[in-house]
Amino acid sequence: MRNTKPSVKDFSKSLIQADTVTLGRAITLIESKKTEDKKFADALLEKILPSTGKSLRIGITGSPGVGKSTFIEAFGKYLTSRGKKIAVLAVDPSSMKTRGSILGDRTRMEELSKDACAFIRPTSSGNSLGGVADRTRETILLCEAAGYEIIIVETVGVGQSETAVRNMVDFFLLLQLAGAGDELQGIKKGIMEMADAIIITKADGENEKKAKQAQTEFQHALHLFQPSTSGWTPKVLTTSALQKKGIAEAWKMIESFHEVTKANNSFQENREQQKLAWFHENIQLMMKEKILQSKKTLSKIQMLEKKINLGKILPSAAAKEILKGL
Amino acid sequence: MRNTKPSVKDFSKSLIQADTVTLGRAITLIESKKTEDKKFADALLEKILPSTGKSLRIGITGSPGVGKSTFIEAFGKYLTSRGKKIAVLAVDPSSMKTRGSILGDRTRMEELSKDACAFIRPTSSGNSLGGVADRTRETILLCEAAGYEIIIVETVGVGQSETAVRNMVDFFLLLQLAGAGDELQGIKKGIMEMADAIIITKADGENEKKAKQAQTEFQHALHLFQPSTSGWTPKVLTTSALQKKGIAEAWKMIESFHEVTKANNSFQENREQQKLAWFHENIQLMMKEKILQSKKTLSKIQMLEKKINLGKILPSAAAKEILKGL
Repeated sequence: MRNTKPSVKDFSKSLIQADTVTLGRAITLIESKKTEDKKFADALLEKILPSTGKSLRIGITGSPGVGKSTFIEAFGKYLTSRGKKIAVLAVDPSSMKTRGSILGDRTRMEELSKDACAFIRPTSSGNSLGGVADRTRETILLCEAAGYEIIIVETVGVGQSETAVRNMVDFFLLLQLAGAGDELQGIKKGIMEMADAIIITKADGENEKKAKQAQTEFQHALHLFQPSTSGWTPKVLTTSALQKKGIAEAWKMIESFHEVTKANNSFQENREQQKLAWFHENIQLMMKEKILQSKKTLSKIQMLEKKINLGKILPSAAAKEILKGL
Repeated sequence: MRNTKPSVKDFSKSLIQADTVTLGRAITLIESKKTEDKKFADALLEKILPSTGKSLRIGITGSPGVGKSTFIEAFGKYLTSRGKKIAVLAVDPSSMKTRGSILGDRTRMEELSKDACAFIRPTSSGNSLGGVADRTRETILLCEAAGYEIIIVETVGVGQSETAVRNMVDFFLLLQLAGAGDELQGIKKGIMEMADAIIITKADGENEKKAKQAQTEFQHALHLFQPSTSGWTPKVLTTSALQKKGIAEAWKMIESFHEVTKANNSFQENREQQKLAWFHENIQLMMKEKILQSKKTLSKIQMLEKKINLGKILPSAAAKEILKGL
């Protein structure tokens, strides 16, 4: 926070006046590990809470190489050209250690990062996915307070990050490459069933035919599942970010999702459920953290894990021993 | 336990000698809510632990009407005819209150229930799925100690029960009815991706052609996912329990799964992971239970939930308030 230390009131005021520098600082405060900064961030969040919740939150996932940044750049530029203010947040547990991803994001979304109506920020650093998820959720709120209307949360699909992102957005989009047979394999468990839509990227040139085939194939597969959001049938589209094809259709589809789910109230219900889940998840995470703070408990857990693996103690009996010691 | 109260030692001795009456009593003790019975059950489990783990554990799920009992009866009879001792445990959270499912199971698997080599028992009663899951896991161990070589854990697919069952078995089988298009819809989220195999039931008469079509369709869909167990490609088969067709093939497939996964060590790794997950799950469940025991905390949680829904407090801040009070 350099030397200047504005009050929470002033800070929230400039945030709500859409000051980008303040937004960036506020996110830094949220990510800070200093107790003082944390307290400030908590007070700030409390203050801006009434100004949040008005955006459309879109989660985007897909394997490396699928063209996520290219899609987000084309999609984002399309939205800003229509007068929308958008924020792009990246949840990337793998880059936690390097903290080097800001530059990376700037480079990979070159045009969008220069766009005055777009705000790009990776959520980096932190020890646990729970922590990253928390900070991303809070960053969404800050962006909303600063007037961003569409928040894109991007995940690279490491570990449990998709589930975490699915649980903080209104619409969840899976990007896929075209390709018959083997190339289609290896979608992580459950991801497809969480999607409100699948977009086949790079549908241009020689690839276009394959993309259409993949579209049919995915439509068929999605058809086997219950829809992820009630009242909404997941769609499969194709896009070419290179040729700017399908981008407007993608936005049209998301707009239609927004209308349908607002009308049948599942949009609001989903938001409420997410807030309650966040609450209960945090209680559990905090309790876990508290327990693992004790070195004695930690080593007891490790000792019992060994005994469990050797078949010397029943897992439920081992859990009772831990609870007794608390 | 009537009037007689044998020692833990005697009890475990007759259990290991495959005494069915003792096995039934032991399960009743596990399900009991009396502190005294629980202590006895815990001591018994500790005693028999070295005699457990040698069975093949098969989870079977499918929607009502898919023909689960008919399949299990045919499959079970096939196994006992080959000299195998099998146990069938049903996890049925919906019948928890009635406790009437034992008679139900006897009726619906008439032949198998008369078979001296088969042991059928529903896991009934209990307040939470966590509790039912625990008791089922412990019942599996008791059955193994009593010499049952194949344990079938059946779930009716209510709520989270499939995930619980998936996490306690070696092989997870999804039963599906044939039927094109709409009839195939509505498989619960994630179930298909948890399956090591799908069997299309009632593949007889006019239904046979449809079953073959469904087989192709499911094979195609499964192909889109990562296999549930490493080194094993999920299979899709058809059976007719009525005409006893496909039953031997189903067993052959499961035997082949057993061989493959034992050879590549994923069988053992899965078991170890399951035991550790059981341990950590129980720690969390027990902590949660402890917290909710306090009426003060419970009403504080409810009050905070209301405030969260009204947008008056941030979920993470609310969680902090709960933790402070503990």
